[in-house]
Amino acid sequence: MKRYRNGEIWDFEHEKIAVGGAFIRENSIFNVNKMNHSGRKVILGIDGGTTSTVCVCMPLIPFTQPLPDPLPVLARAVAGCSNHNSVGESAARDTLEQVMADALIKSASTRSAVQAVCLSVAGVDHPTDQDRILNWLREIFPSHVRLFVQNDAVAALASGTMGKLHGCVLIASTGTIAYGFTEDGREARAAGAGPILGDWGSGYGIAAQALTAVIRAHDGRGPQTSLTLGILHKLNLSSPDELIGWTYADPSWARIAALVPVVVSSAEAGDLVANKILHDAVQELSSSVKAVVQRLDLCGEDGKDYFPLVMVGGVLEANKRWDIGNEVMNCISKDFPGVRPIRPKVEHI
Amino acid sequence: MKRYRNGEIWDFEHEKIAVGGAFIRENSIFNVNKMNHSGRKVILGIDGGTTSTVCVCMPLIPFTQPLPDPLPVLARAVAGCSNHNSVGESAARDTLEQVMADALIKSASTRSAVQAVCLSVAGVDHPTDQDRILNWLREIFPSHVRLFVQNDAVAALASGTMGKLHGCVLIASTGTIAYGFTEDGREARAAGAGPILGDWGSGYGIAAQALTAVIRAHDGRGPQTSLTLGILHKLNLSSPDELIGWTYADPSWARIAALVPVVVSSAEAGDLVANKILHDAVQELSSSVKAVVQRLDLCGEDGKDYFPLVMVGGVLEANKRWDIGNEVMNCISKDFPGVRPIRPKVEHI
Repeated sequence: MKRYRNGEIWDFEHEKIAVGGAFIRENSIFNVNKMNHSGRKVILGIDGGTTSTVCVCMPLIPFTQPLPDPLPVLARAVAGCSNHNSVGESAARDTLEQVMADALIKSASTRSAVQAVCLSVAGVDHPTDQDRILNWLREIFPSHVRLFVQNDAVAALASGTMGKLHGCVLIASTGTIAYGFTEDGREARAAGAGPILGDWGSGYGIAAQALTAVIRAHDGRGPQTSLTLGILHKLNLSSPDELIGWTYADPSWARIAALVPVVVSSAEAGDLVANKILHDAVQELSSSVKAVVQRLDLCGEDGKDYFPLVMVGGVLEANKRWDIGNEVMNCISKDFPGVRPIRPKVEHI
Repeated sequence: MKRYRNGEIWDFEHEKIAVGGAFIRENSIFNVNKMNHSGRKVILGIDGGTTSTVCVCMPLIPFTQPLPDPLPVLARAVAGCSNHNSVGESAARDTLEQVMADALIKSASTRSAVQAVCLSVAGVDHPTDQDRILNWLREIFPSHVRLFVQNDAVAALASGTMGKLHGCVLIASTGTIAYGFTEDGREARAAGAGPILGDWGSGYGIAAQALTAVIRAHDGRGPQTSLTLGILHKLNLSSPDELIGWTYADPSWARIAALVPVVVSSAEAGDLVANKILHDAVQELSSSVKAVVQRLDLCGEDGKDYFPLVMVGGVLEANKRWDIGNEVMNCISKDFPGVRPIRPKVEHI
């Protein structure tokens, strides 16, 4: 696919009919001709992650109207990684521009129809990250367009609260982060700093602990564990020594996090080492949520106020006997009995 | 500098006088002419690491003669990383060939003078690593040349025991490994598997724990610590949030391990978090040595036999009040009173 450099992608708007152009997808030529001048106002919502980025284009719905169910999605576009920490600033911007342009073309709209952009993207860790993205978004969209830039955890929270930014969200997939909002607009986060900076409850963290346990059992520093056979079998290796070359060959976090099901299986079969790893992960994940709840006082003065906790990500999915998400809930509700878990139904791409 | 692909570098031996060639260094043309036909037999010793690689060329000294002191080094050549895990097989081989050819040219020798090659190189973690290197060394040197390929920890042990492979060596710099040999030729290792696989007593491990402690103090998961000010000051950052971008910008382990002195200073000033990190590192490093000693039975049946423990690497250097190496020794000697520490004087390049 042709790569567009920052800003170039919007040239499609000046082409009369971009037949054969990179962005013309099924039926869109017809739509472009029919709808481009309809004057329909739209909003763009982007969920930008390290694995993939999704943009949906929706019609603007006035506040006075109830939200339709299901929501009227005009178009949906998918692209790759938009976390600047992983691919660099320029490539992340390219991806975000690409996915927005794609969604607009698919919905037969142009930038002039856009009234608001809500960009929830991994790697927004500091106000300067937000400012940098807002600056280049402002180059693309005129000043009347409302722009919102947030960490992707915010989209995850909204997915469980039907858009209301109140409560806490815990994400645990390859990485992990806890993010919280109060009704008066304060926010706080914990973890989400990457594996070097100690996100130990993440899928990567769980799997790295399991790999470490295999090495320690092998060299005499730790107890024997059924993780050894489970992991070697899964990776088609014959000796723990070979794990060294395996990890060096491709240090991608997602590749390591993919071993979590082996850890869960070993724990379910009674392996003490695997059980300890999962219990430690539960403590880590719970401590992230507790830190956010305490800083924002989400639980009220008596510690018993109701607040929603949206739980998303493969590590927390309730499809196993050893249910990590459930254990995290139990741990949190001991301190904060008002916690109300929400496991949103989200699309898998 | 011109890059030579695997095997090409030895072409210099067919050139009559390689004036202006890439490998002719100061005075070597004269030496080549004078000495090339002297028939002097030499050996090559290579210490190959992730940061740098050193090759020395020495005259072959018959077993019947005592080793001269100082050892008669004919030439010494330095190159970059030769750990295949870091740079790949081909680049690692290039570097090793380059440094050997360099040392031979500097000592006015050629391959035909070489009687033995001892290659101690980081990343030799499995018999297949050894076999792969032996195979290409055998393409370069004829069958009468004795070839030895070992993990670089073996060179470190020999540096403390004047060449005798008996006892244990503990390396703790950016990474860490413990390696042991018995007098009857058995060997064992512990750790040395890299940061993903839990080398927590390493310089990288200590610094990563410190960075994690700063993030946890910042987001409410952990206690406040003077590491925050110390590390932010050292890195010229203004907020712990900025550490996320800092670690992503360049995940080199050595860059992170360079923060160890900040941790030691904080611990010396009484910071509880920093002290716990160093005490944990002492336990980790000690457990590596203990695992090797037990597997090889280095301490004899009553656990009190004498054995040498060679300690090398910046983490173990005895130049601080909080002396990690000394604490490791204390911890090991509680279980194995026969341990005798050796801190060899090694060249710093």
